[in-house]
Amino acid sequence: MAIAMDINSDLGESFGAYTIGNDGKLMEYITSASVACGWHAGDPVVMEKTVALAMEKGIGIGAHPGYPDLMGFGRREMMLKPSEVYAYVLYQIGALQAFVRAAGGRLQHVKPHGALYNQACKDQSLATEICRAARDIDPNLIILAPYSSAFRPAAEKIGLPFAAEFFADRAYLPDGNLVPRTREGAVIHDAELACARVLKMAQQGSVTCIDGSELKMRCVSVCVHGDNAAALESVRKIREALEHNKVEVKPMKELV
Amino acid sequence: MAIAMDINSDLGESFGAYTIGNDGKLMEYITSASVACGWHAGDPVVMEKTVALAMEKGIGIGAHPGYPDLMGFGRREMMLKPSEVYAYVLYQIGALQAFVRAAGGRLQHVKPHGALYNQACKDQSLATEICRAARDIDPNLIILAPYSSAFRPAAEKIGLPFAAEFFADRAYLPDGNLVPRTREGAVIHDAELACARVLKMAQQGSVTCIDGSELKMRCVSVCVHGDNAAALESVRKIREALEHNKVEVKPMKELV
Amino acid sequence: MAIAMDINSDLGESFGAYTIGNDGKLMEYITSASVACGWHAGDPVVMEKTVALAMEKGIGIGAHPGYPDLMGFGRREMMLKPSEVYAYVLYQIGALQAFVRAAGGRLQHVKPHGALYNQACKDQSLATEICRAARDIDPNLIILAPYSSAFRPAAEKIGLPFAAEFFADRAYLPDGNLVPRTREGAVIHDAELACARVLKMAQQGSVTCIDGSELKMRCVSVCVHGDNAAALESVRKIREALEHNKVEVKPMKELV
Amino acid sequence: MAIAMDINSDLGESFGAYTIGNDGKLMEYITSASVACGWHAGDPVVMEKTVALAMEKGIGIGAHPGYPDLMGFGRREMMLKPSEVYAYVLYQIGALQAFVRAAGGRLQHVKPHGALYNQACKDQSLATEICRAARDIDPNLIILAPYSSAFRPAAEKIGLPFAAEFFADRAYLPDGNLVPRTREGAVIHDAELACARVLKMAQQGSVTCIDGSELKMRCVSVCVHGDNAAALESVRKIREALEHNKVEVKPMKELV
Repeated sequence: MAIAMDINSDLGESFGAYTIGNDGKLMEYITSASVACGWHAGDPVVMEKTVALAMEKGIGIGAHPGYPDLMGFGRREMMLKPSEVYAYVLYQIGALQAFVRAAGGRLQHVKPHGALYNQACKDQSLATEICRAARDIDPNLIILAPYSSAFRPAAEKIGLPFAAEFFADRAYLPDGNLVPRTREGAVIHDAELACARVLKMAQQGSVTCIDGSELKMRCVSVCVHGDNAAALESVRKIREALEHNKVEVKPMKELV
Repeated sequence: MAIAMDINSDLGESFGAYTIGNDGKLMEYITSASVACGWHAGDPVVMEKTVALAMEKGIGIGAHPGYPDLMGFGRREMMLKPSEVYAYVLYQIGALQAFVRAAGGRLQHVKPHGALYNQACKDQSLATEICRAARDIDPNLIILAPYSSAFRPAAEKIGLPFAAEFFADRAYLPDGNLVPRTREGAVIHDAELACARVLKMAQQGSVTCIDGSELKMRCVSVCVHGDNAAALESVRKIREALEHNKVEVKPMKELV
Repeated sequence: MAIAMDINSDLGESFGAYTIGNDGKLMEYITSASVACGWHAGDPVVMEKTVALAMEKGIGIGAHPGYPDLMGFGRREMMLKPSEVYAYVLYQIGALQAFVRAAGGRLQHVKPHGALYNQACKDQSLATEICRAARDIDPNLIILAPYSSAFRPAAEKIGLPFAAEFFADRAYLPDGNLVPRTREGAVIHDAELACARVLKMAQQGSVTCIDGSELKMRCVSVCVHGDNAAALESVRKIREALEHNKVEVKPMKELV
Repeated sequence: MAIAMDINSDLGESFGAYTIGNDGKLMEYITSASVACGWHAGDPVVMEKTVALAMEKGIGIGAHPGYPDLMGFGRREMMLKPSEVYAYVLYQIGALQAFVRAAGGRLQHVKPHGALYNQACKDQSLATEICRAARDIDPNLIILAPYSSAFRPAAEKIGLPFAAEFFADRAYLPDGNLVPRTREGAVIHDAELACARVLKMAQQGSVTCIDGSELKMRCVSVCVHGDNAAALESVRKIREALEHNKVEVKPMKELV
């Protein structure tokens, strides 16, 4: 198998008259987009435009469901019943899928957003409800989440394909979790080092942890952001580093 | 062809802790349900329950998209761009379709709600956007609307099946439109007369207008409400009248 | 000082076309109403009507702010920053105050709703933000909350009057907290016993705890609900028991 | 009386993670701000910040209530009952007033937003409801609206002070209404001409209409926008032109 990697980002987070992100520019570099579904961000008009643009560029499209908390951008923890999480996620994936189908495409993956993502990473019951919702929409949907999260066993149990995502600019603990932002060294500010880490992940499926140990952890996608010029620049560098080193960059559906 | 008729009603309009309607009882009599999609009414948990119950009873399920106006129950006119209407309706149908598919069913029809319905009945461009959205979800979706509305030519133009609905307790003008509620005689309060009108529509495809003229107007579905005991009772009578007179009562997908 | 007691309930929780509660009937018995402010329940039209009705009956009016979670009726925990809680509560109290002033009245108290109430009962920083918001609206606003909650010290620190509320049908622990609903004996189903407990609170300022110990805890208001016929009936009995035993029943502003 | 003029703009339209406008920069030049109240734009945290900043700069603060349509930024017409408009506007002004009072200030004026503004300009019953709501909050609140709109007679009837606003870059019809944007010459692109028109309004209380006629129309405030660098630049020029010509620039409360 050729060495290959996906680059994913969250997109379509504008809402009505409000614009967030550099979707157009970011789409020059990424191969998978997780599109907001109108609850924590995004609206139907934004979803339609985002899907159209992603289709045009051959980008794999995923649903990015979140909490019903537009005012908090889905970043605030909410304590919902698992049955509510199932229904809320099914609703949002279904809505996005409609836009993808209407544009002649097929939904590739599901990646929850913000607090829902963070809570489910640590809570098997939430992760399972999200995977159930994805499976009930389409059993070929890929769950995109961290390698060492509750999503991996949940997806496996439900029978869904799973894609692990790698965070280029974040230090890892030996158990595969991210070093909390409050700890020194949690964020890697050196862009070249970040690129080297992505390359190593692509080529060797491993990462050097904060304690110097090596951790095997097959991640097929690197997660990037494009909120500002510096972020965009680092995405460009990651893409270049991969291509210069003969790592094919393509949507995760071709890698899972 | 055997003589047959569908009985449709709007359902799934509860929201969170708020309950509206007698969905359980109404489902004893109807054969098609238009289910609210979370914008003017309904929420994902309600949608899941309503779809499950309808599936259990063999009721044809439709999407009932409305304006983003929960506080006004979707009954207040809004002036949206046609492109917004397309995206809003696609979003809502897609969300409901997910619940129907997850339950192993297939969406039968689309009937817009409240002010969106009323405005589109008279506005070809709105009706067309709604039909486009339905077609882009599934070209077999039936558009359920009044016979003499902009939906009929719009559905035809877009290539979607169309089902006309009949209002048992409303008087008709010779042009096929309803007599406005402000005019005397607009509402038919006599339950037996209402039943007789439904029967005539089922058997002869015609209605006696307010001026005494006969109007040919093939309606395959009668629209009913079940908000209170009296309404439920009149639905029961309509169903009985149809069955006693050998009119088969079944979902519109078997009639279009 | 004459022996007296306030009876409080949450009101104005209808929303748009959705009706909840028996506000009209409940207002026959209560002397203080905590009115929803449009976030977890209520809307401006409902607020206007509820305030008008309460004014007419001479009922003390309080603001009942909650989380921005209409779909969950404000009952689901959310993790907000204290500064967000301050702003959200100030907003809601301000909105309700406008209706009270427009009706010629004066806001009496503030009682948070649902999960916000429960979380702040145990979290001094949340309780303090809520008290700060109330004080910044009007330093005479009474904070209505449980005796053994973080609201009492918070109100004292901020310099606001505090009114403790008593739950007639709930058993108490010796520390003044409610026995969790999951434990046997948590709910008192015997209406006469509930009345006797309210009477004892009014007359002696004490309650018999679940372990048989007596707890001094001056509560000036008893909290009641009127969701169904049985609940209404028990409110009526409490009011009668108080009046038959020469306990004056009047708004908390006359008692604090 | 010294010749003086107010410069007003809409502010506080950010929402949660979404930022709109250049509030900080715009506040260098304006003397009155109409602050969004959380319905069409704005949220409580934004309102608190905007009010604090405006207070710091000595800017007169007004409420800028709009339709419950965040997705459409309050720019889409909605057909509400007058009683709904009253309650919605009272709610929003009350909420904003709470922030102004909490900051030690006093609300200066009310200017509705977007479609609500446009519809009420032409509809005496809507304008009256808005004025009623303002009066029921505080009879000293100034209504800020176009000279030739339904607001002027409505405010007069209700007994509220009225301030007319002037649009520097828009051509006027001889009846005092704006030339519709669809007509040639509707927008004045020449910044110096715009400044000259403001100056003439300040000094002579009149404007040269599109047909060359002179129209007497005392406007005490000029309405400006600061969405982009060019807009900001034109505001700066207007302020300079006024000051260079000995026109005092100050909040409308000192001019009405």
